[in-house]
Amino acid sequence: MNRVLSAIDKGRDAALDGLREFLRIPSVSTHAHHKQDVQNCAEFLAEEMRRIGLHEVESIPTAGHPIVYGEWMGAPGQRTVLFYGHYDVQPAEPFELWETDPFDPTVRGDDLFARGSTDDKGQVWLHLKALEAHLTQTGRLPVNVKWLIEGEEEVTGPNLDAYVESHQEKLAADLILISDTTMFDYDVPSITYGLRGISYMEVLTQGSNEDLHSGGYGGSVANPINAMASIIAQLLDDKGRITIPGFYDDVVPLTDDERAAFAALPFDEEAYRKRLGVDALTGETGYTSLERIWARPTLDVNGILGGFTGEGSKTIIPSKGMAKVSMRLVPEQDPVQIAEMFENHVRKLTPPGVTIDFIRHGTGKPFLTPKDHPFIQAAGRALEKGFGRAPVYNREGGSIPVVATFQETLGLPTVLMGFGLPDCNAHAPNEKFNLKNFYRGIASAAWFYQELYTDKYV
Amino acid sequence: MNRVLSAIDKGRDAALDGLREFLRIPSVSTHAHHKQDVQNCAEFLAEEMRRIGLHEVESIPTAGHPIVYGEWMGAPGQRTVLFYGHYDVQPAEPFELWETDPFDPTVRGDDLFARGSTDDKGQVWLHLKALEAHLTQTGRLPVNVKWLIEGEEEVTGPNLDAYVESHQEKLAADLILISDTTMFDYDVPSITYGLRGISYMEVLTQGSNEDLHSGGYGGSVANPINAMASIIAQLLDDKGRITIPGFYDDVVPLTDDERAAFAALPFDEEAYRKRLGVDALTGETGYTSLERIWARPTLDVNGILGGFTGEGSKTIIPSKGMAKVSMRLVPEQDPVQIAEMFENHVRKLTPPGVTIDFIRHGTGKPFLTPKDHPFIQAAGRALEKGFGRAPVYNREGGSIPVVATFQETLGLPTVLMGFGLPDCNAHAPNEKFNLKNFYRGIASAAWFYQELYTDKYV
Repeated sequence: MNRVLSAIDKGRDAALDGLREFLRIPSVSTHAHHKQDVQNCAEFLAEEMRRIGLHEVESIPTAGHPIVYGEWMGAPGQRTVLFYGHYDVQPAEPFELWETDPFDPTVRGDDLFARGSTDDKGQVWLHLKALEAHLTQTGRLPVNVKWLIEGEEEVTGPNLDAYVESHQEKLAADLILISDTTMFDYDVPSITYGLRGISYMEVLTQGSNEDLHSGGYGGSVANPINAMASIIAQLLDDKGRITIPGFYDDVVPLTDDERAAFAALPFDEEAYRKRLGVDALTGETGYTSLERIWARPTLDVNGILGGFTGEGSKTIIPSKGMAKVSMRLVPEQDPVQIAEMFENHVRKLTPPGVTIDFIRHGTGKPFLTPKDHPFIQAAGRALEKGFGRAPVYNREGGSIPVVATFQETLGLPTVLMGFGLPDCNAHAPNEKFNLKNFYRGIASAAWFYQELYTDKYV
Repeated sequence: MNRVLSAIDKGRDAALDGLREFLRIPSVSTHAHHKQDVQNCAEFLAEEMRRIGLHEVESIPTAGHPIVYGEWMGAPGQRTVLFYGHYDVQPAEPFELWETDPFDPTVRGDDLFARGSTDDKGQVWLHLKALEAHLTQTGRLPVNVKWLIEGEEEVTGPNLDAYVESHQEKLAADLILISDTTMFDYDVPSITYGLRGISYMEVLTQGSNEDLHSGGYGGSVANPINAMASIIAQLLDDKGRITIPGFYDDVVPLTDDERAAFAALPFDEEAYRKRLGVDALTGETGYTSLERIWARPTLDVNGILGGFTGEGSKTIIPSKGMAKVSMRLVPEQDPVQIAEMFENHVRKLTPPGVTIDFIRHGTGKPFLTPKDHPFIQAAGRALEKGFGRAPVYNREGGSIPVVATFQETLGLPTVLMGFGLPDCNAHAPNEKFNLKNFYRGIASAAWFYQELYTDKYV
């Protein structure tokens, strides 16, 4: 490993130059006029994977953008890591809010500014550099690796799921490795061992068959927006708990150990409150903010619409109301079962004179790998060696759909080892990647493959 | 009166021809390109008023469209009727839904189809014909009349209010007469003796200072739309009563006599329910639909908006919510006081982590003239003579802002004697005026002036 680490250290400038080249290709998956750029980006990445010594590298056409695959299987008997990442990026609009061109990567201070710098090109690139260091210095990798890098993450295209589904043998591995999350804070390496799932519902209320004059009819006919408000209000009690019967039945409670670990994290509730600009933090009674975000389910209205919403006033009783309501779920809640419970409960809450309908906008399973899983522990040791500091083990409140895909299709544990920062502006103007963490990330990734190897013989 | 009635009878065709000419002028007050038409319409009306023998007739310029004024004050010692109407009309769009040209008045069956036929040109015209019959047959009117016909009713322009305010002496009278309402049903002449008032509020909730990712933050911060739903839900109890403290303090209860009179009206709740397309009629417990609409206050959301409302899903905790909430009020509720009560109560219902703000979109006072008021009774006798059937005394659920203006500025009782029908399509395509009611209206109006004269000497 000394040679490997030394090579990484000496290769910093080359690593940065290569990443810049990768970032210059505007692989915006959602824009049709960037389709060729996305294709070019896939080819560029495939070429780099070949150059460092991966085999079977191909840019695989799909109905949308290509999937790039490559592998190094020269360590028979060793574990196989399936590394997942994506080379497509969010659109950069609004351009005018960028201080420098989003596709002309620019270093200012410790940061590299470019669209995709953190999400996810920079994090893919650091793994590539880690593999390259092993391969150039030792001619081999400590373990087997398979790389699966998609070009439709930012548009949640269906093609990756289909590919994984139909290539289970090809993708067979011992674990999934993803670097597409953030560190808890600058200088605080982190392993994300839990994600929330989601059930996203649209609720439609209907009263009269057309909008009515509120003078001529008001008082005699149910108002579908008042009804919607009443339904939504009844979904949460005064302790911030969701009232759907059975909702909490499958919730895995926080362990004392986890609560202690969360409490030990350098999280400042008061600073958090100020940053959000609210006079009080609220949520389920009996839990801290981190516990509420990471380990407790929620119910939030994401959007609501009905009746007259222009300037001024119009005196109508609307005929329809619409609300988008999503529930973030925690292990072992089943999102589809929750969607059914939600519909049944809302039906019961619907007052006379109003009819109700639903659109289900998709579900995602929650994810939890035990903190003491050997692969998680190996990742922890790798980060400690790469950063000179033990990582924190955190959960995240969001969902990463691809994790559910891997979990369901391949049934593998997943290691989420992210090097972004909470203020990295992913999806926003002036996205940036902290270069110190980029370099520490290369070392950590190199150590992870080594730790997986060592771990097997301890 | 025999000569007058006979003249009205013989003058039917001429009355219809004149109305057609009046209707051909597209006096759409809201469209700038019709400004000259509105002006022409005012001149046309003024000329007709002069022709039948009114004095001091003028088309008075305002910052917007002209007000037409005229008077006949040749009955010293007699009562003075201030007749109000409007010669402007709603836009006719969408034109393609009209069966015949909205500005080419066409008779089909018993109906005259044209924009403004009922609202309000036809109803102004029938009063003009009633005065004409008196003046041509007797050379005089039974009472004094002042005519005030505006051109901005459909755009609720500020110019009439200002004119009334600054011409109180000129407009001095004993009562206001308006024909701009509808009959309870075909063949059922009606006097509207009550209107509801209104307080129209916009409620604004604010949570965090920007939209947040519902995964990364959900559960730890108040959602301003959930908060809005909770506020709205708490404004009504399970009996459909408004929970604002003091809200009902000034409500004049329905009398047993009124309830009996409403119950005696030919109103079919089941047909009404079917027409609205709802599975049940709902509202304040203990009241019939007519009571709820005409004599009980209400609270309805007119519109609501917040967060993501496009197709599909977006996982955000919105930073803002907006709801337009209007309350229909009944005598003697004070709309401004109600607006204040509303704000105070909503502030108390606002949960921690959310701030609240309000926009007041205007208020209108409720209106009630006792059914046994001499002028109302005189109108009742006139309608009975004009239609051969005693009128019903009804209230309406809506508001007519100009009634409040007269009530507040001139302090006069108002007689609302309408000849439209519930299905006359005012403000909609294929507006029509039932010609039988047009002719019966002319006779009724002629009788009303006579009854006011007679009444004084009973």
